[in-house]
Amino acid sequence: MSTSFADPTALSHADLEEGTLFAPKFDAHGLVTAVAQEAGSNRVLMVAHMNAEALRLTIETGEVHYYSRSRKKLWKKGESSGEIQKLVEMRTDCDQDVVLLLVEQTGRGAACHTGRKSCFYRIVEDTETLRQSGEARLFDPAEVYKVQ
Amino acid sequence: MSTSFADPTALSHADLEEGTLFAPKFDAHGLVTAVAQEAGSNRVLMVAHMNAEALRLTIETGEVHYYSRSRKKLWKKGESSGEIQKLVEMRTDCDQDVVLLLVEQTGRGAACHTGRKSCFYRIVEDTETLRQSGEARLFDPAEVYKVQ
Repeated sequence: MSTSFADPTALSHADLEEGTLFAPKFDAHGLVTAVAQEAGSNRVLMVAHMNAEALRLTIETGEVHYYSRSRKKLWKKGESSGEIQKLVEMRTDCDQDVVLLLVEQTGRGAACHTGRKSCFYRIVEDTETLRQSGEARLFDPAEVYKVQ
Repeated sequence: MSTSFADPTALSHADLEEGTLFAPKFDAHGLVTAVAQEAGSNRVLMVAHMNAEALRLTIETGEVHYYSRSRKKLWKKGESSGEIQKLVEMRTDCDQDVVLLLVEQTGRGAACHTGRKSCFYRIVEDTETLRQSGEARLFDPAEVYKVQ
C-alpha cells in the first residue's frame, strides 16, 4: 500500500495555508502530531504522533492508528486494550503539520493507558506542582495490559 | 530568571505518571507541545511549542507564551496582533511531554495568524483533499501584520 501524500514543499505558502490539497508536513522523523478530541464534549483525550502509514490507515479505515515513538511501530489504538477510536472528523491546521481528530472513544471510554478517559488528568498549579483533577479510572491497567 | 523545571529523568515511571511533581519532558530541541483550547467551547484553537522560558512565563504571568520554531525566539502570543491568550487552566499528560492550555482568546478572538478563530479551518476529506469548514476571518492578516 502506498503511503505517499502530496509534498508540502512543492506548494506555495498560500496553497499550503489556503488550498484544498492535503499535503501533511511530516517532521524530520516522518511524523505529524495528532490531537484526539472526544466528539460531543470536545474534551482533548490524548496527543500522539502519526507516520504516513498511520495517517493513511486512519483515513481509509476510519479507525485511528498512531505511530508509537517508544515502541517504534505502527499502533492501532485499542489493539491491546479494546479502546478503539472511531474517526468522526479529521482536520489539519494552517501549515498542515498537525491533525486534529474528532473521535468516538469506544470500549470503556478510556483513551489513556492509565485507564482514564483523558491523558490530561493533572492540573499544573505552579512551576513545580501538579494537582489530580479527580478523573476516574475506567479500567485497571494492570488487568488490561497483562503482557507488559 | 531561572527557567529550570524538575528533571523528568530523575523520576520513576510511576512518579512521572501519577505524582504531583511537575517535571515537563522537553524534547531534543528543548520543547514541549502545547495545545490551546478555548475555554467554554473547548474548541482547539492551535497547536504550538514552548521552551522552558515560554512555559515558565505562561505559568507566572497568566498570558500564554510560545517558542517560535521558524523565528527561533520566544513569542508572546498576541504581541503583534493583539490576540493575547489569557490562561484559565493548564494541564499536562501522563508522560508530561504535552501541556493542554484552556485559554480565553482576547482581541478579536482569532488564534490563527490567518485571522480565523482556530488554525483548524480545513476538514480532511480523503488522503488528497481538504474542504474549507467555512470559518470566518475575524481580521485581515495583511492589515494586522504590516511588517511582514
